[in-house]
This record gives sequence, structure tokens and C-alpha cells, in this order.
Amino acid sequence: MTVRPFQDADWPQLWPLLRDTFAAGDTYAFAPDSSEAEIRKAWIDAPQSTWLACAADGRLLGTYILKPNQPGLGGHVCNCGYVVAPEARGQGIASAMCEHSQDEARRQGFRAMQFNLVVSTNEGAVRLWRKLGFHIVGTLPRAFRHAQRGYVDAYVMFKTLV
Amino acid sequence: MTVRPFQDADWPQLWPLLRDTFAAGDTYAFAPDSSEAEIRKAWIDAPQSTWLACAADGRLLGTYILKPNQPGLGGHVCNCGYVVAPEARGQGIASAMCEHSQDEARRQGFRAMQFNLVVSTNEGAVRLWRKLGFHIVGTLPRAFRHAQRGYVDAYVMFKTLV
Repeated sequence: MTVRPFQDADWPQLWPLLRDTFAAGDTYAFAPDSSEAEIRKAWIDAPQSTWLACAADGRLLGTYILKPNQPGLGGHVCNCGYVVAPEARGQGIASAMCEHSQDEARRQGFRAMQFNLVVSTNEGAVRLWRKLGFHIVGTLPRAFRHAQRGYVDAYVMFKTLV
Repeated sequence: MTVRPFQDADWPQLWPLLRDTFAAGDTYAFAPDSSEAEIRKAWIDAPQSTWLACAADGRLLGTYILKPNQPGLGGHVCNCGYVVAPEARGQGIASAMCEHSQDEARRQGFRAMQFNLVVSTNEGAVRLWRKLGFHIVGTLPRAFRHAQRGYVDAYVMFKTLV
């Protein structure tokens, strides 16, 4: 597996993965019926950088974004989001992308990484981020409207990188 | 005092207040050297609505913004930011604007209000938000680069509105 920057030619392969992930309504706040243009704005235009995890044969395994979490005086803390292709789950892709993103964040001069809305029912993700050194620093009551479970809590998770 | 929606004609009076507030670098993450265009984008274009608190004679006493804190499945939680004119401090303007914003948020259908980066050294604000029913639900270690004090903690504060 290699992790490399997104290129325009990747979009036709990338966006259906994001569409299906958001459509599930169980991990990301992006509207489940987000249009291709809205998804492109969120995953390509808004972030500082977008990365892809690819198999040796070029197949897309996952993707992540990296951006400052706040402007100016909060801009030393970055924010990331990760998506793993369904057929690639359980192979350590999320873990590898998260480690990669921390290295990349340090390289770009960020001092910490913050996740703003980790859905509490996404137990696998919470367990993985903890294993990788992130702490739950806050709980947002009923801040996520889960497609199946209704309003559920979300966590703010944080890791100091320096 | 009245609280009313921002109109274009208010900008010449409003933006120097925002410029000076951000320039101080002790309460908001917006870069202290933000340009007029950047400030307009942050305070007028990006928010769902922008409000002004004005004295009977029309003088600007304060301003606040209201917007969804997250898209889609997090869009039932709103976010607000408040600025009080230096000469109007200690007169309950922030408190009145915060109460107004909670009513407005409920009117717009929001179920909760979240502040993402309350600077821990801004003790007056923290005390006021607590008094108005907000809870510190998270602490972000050294997440704000204070112009005088360097890296200081910031709080996530939250209030359920329904």
C-alpha cells in the first residue's frame, strides 16, 4: 500500500466511495444526499491537502483530508477525516492513514490534531484513535443525528503532536 | 438597546470593531492582521445570519453571528460568536445578545448551541456563558495561541436548547 496526494484523475474512482460513505449517515456529518459538487468541495477544495491510500495495482483503499481546524491563532491545530473502502476494512488502512497524516501534519508545522465530531456509536473508530494516542477531550450531547439510531453523542478527540 | 439583523449600510461602523477585536489576539482565532475582505467573509458571508445590538441613538454596541456548527447530520447544533464594543462593556450587552441568539436559534430550529474555542484566559466570557446555562464539555490543550500569553487551553462549551 502507498499513500500519495490526490490528483484530478483520481476523482471518478474517489467520489463514489465518499458518496456511499456519507449516504450511510453513521460516521460523517456531511448530508447523506450530498451532490457530487458538494462532496468535491468538502473533500478536495476545502482541505489543505487530500491523500489516497492505494494498493500496488492502483486500487483505491482509502482517503484522508488534512486542514487547519481553525484560522489564525487556532491554526496550529489540524483536523483530519478518513474514509476506508468497504472491501478494504480490517486491513489496517485507517491506522496507516492516520499515522501518515500525523507525519504529514508535523511536516506542515502543525502542533496537534483534533477530531471535532467522532460519532460515539462508531466504536471501532473510537478504539482505533485511542490506540493511536488520541484522547477523548470532550463529549457533545446528542450532537450527531445518526441515520438509524437518531440523536447520539459525539466526541471531540485530540492528540498533541510535538 | 435593540438587536436587529445586519444591513449593508452597517458595515462601515461594524468592521473597525471586528478589526480591533481580532487584532487584540486574545479572544478569537481569526488572524490578528485579517483584511477587511477576510473579516467580511467571516462575519457576514459565512454565517447564516449576523445581528447588531444598537443603542437608541443607533450607536453600535455589539454584534453576533449564528450558523450551523456542522453540515447535514450535525446541522441541528448551531454556533455563535459575539463581540461587544469596548465602550459598551459591563452593561450586559453580551448577555442580552446571547439570550437573543438562543431565541433566534430555537426559532430557526436548532436544538443546541456549541462554542468551539472559548479561550480559557477569557475568564469573563467563560463565567458569563456558564451563568447563561452553557457547560464546559471539553478542554483543548494549548489550542489557542494568545497574543500575549502564548499557547493556552481553550474550552468547548455547549448548551441544549430544547
